[in-house]
Amino acid sequence: MDALQLLIQTLAKLPGIGRKSAARMAYYLLKADNKYVSDLGKYIYHLKDRITSCPVCGNYTETTPCPICTDPKRDQSVICVVEQSQDVLNLEESGEFRGLYHVLQGVISPLDGYHPEDLTISLLEKRIASGTVNELIIATNPTVEGDTTALYLADKFKKAGLNVSRLASGLPVGGDIEYADRRTIALALRGRTSL
Amino acid sequence: MDALQLLIQTLAKLPGIGRKSAARMAYYLLKADNKYVSDLGKYIYHLKDRITSCPVCGNYTETTPCPICTDPKRDQSVICVVEQSQDVLNLEESGEFRGLYHVLQGVISPLDGYHPEDLTISLLEKRIASGTVNELIIATNPTVEGDTTALYLADKFKKAGLNVSRLASGLPVGGDIEYADRRTIALALRGRTSL
Repeated sequence: MDALQLLIQTLAKLPGIGRKSAARMAYYLLKADNKYVSDLGKYIYHLKDRITSCPVCGNYTETTPCPICTDPKRDQSVICVVEQSQDVLNLEESGEFRGLYHVLQGVISPLDGYHPEDLTISLLEKRIASGTVNELIIATNPTVEGDTTALYLADKFKKAGLNVSRLASGLPVGGDIEYADRRTIALALRGRTSL
Repeated sequence: MDALQLLIQTLAKLPGIGRKSAARMAYYLLKADNKYVSDLGKYIYHLKDRITSCPVCGNYTETTPCPICTDPKRDQSVICVVEQSQDVLNLEESGEFRGLYHVLQGVISPLDGYHPEDLTISLLEKRIASGTVNELIIATNPTVEGDTTALYLADKFKKAGLNVSRLASGLPVGGDIEYADRRTIALALRGRTSL
């Protein structure tokens, strides 16, 4: 197989990229600036050498521990627990949270073979045992698996005397009640805030 | 900027890839098989060293002339003229055409600064002057620019005594008359085939 076909086939394995998009990307690269193409190739080739898991919070990082775990300006008393690294990025972009994170690297989902011991929960227990943390904000997704994981963590860490909360569920900003599903409306009603 | 952010920013420059998709791809790569990631990096890095333009037909190729131009089993008397390399791939997949191709590497579009001399038309004239070709199938897109280019080429090469035709316009297979635009319906009517 020639280099172009091989690239298209390899790109088509990326999430959300079909054969047509892969071909479009490959042909774009053929016409693109040489430096851009060689940079992209290098970044991908070296990605795994440069990025590892933070031994404290489980987030992807280039330095260990990661820049968030080692930032003295962040609030060391509160940890926001997320399913995956991407979520840290989004929470950081909101600019609302100045504490630490903990990346579970998954959710409890027995049907898919994911049990509590497959997540980074023991790492979280160790951090909490060190004594500086007194609040957990659970930011798992509002899905069946995310709910299960949140309840499991709440049960475990409330016993340890921590203040445990979860992100609010409700209508997304810019959303439309007309198109919201029943469960979202029910949660938005239950979690209503006084004006 | 760290390696992950740099990769996300670079991926986001690809066509049809926004920041969210770029992040999704980058995080997928972090979890993916090592060999897959290093292969992808290598393919992209070496792409431009391996692929050049065929000096005969203008298509992208690893060997010069390209495998289609050098295939003795293909019909040397007919050339299908396309706008870009991608189109060759699609026409080949249809399995209908066994002649040669010519890639214009663009269309005539004076407003965007593309004139006939910016395309590979002089290369096409040279091929035709060699005498083995007696038919041209013009497969430019059914757009204003594609139409202009088709008329320009038809005018030029009919004078040279060639049989010049163009791909049919009409309803796409699986399409719906209800949703077809007026111009497509008009062309489908004009080009109707007897049953």
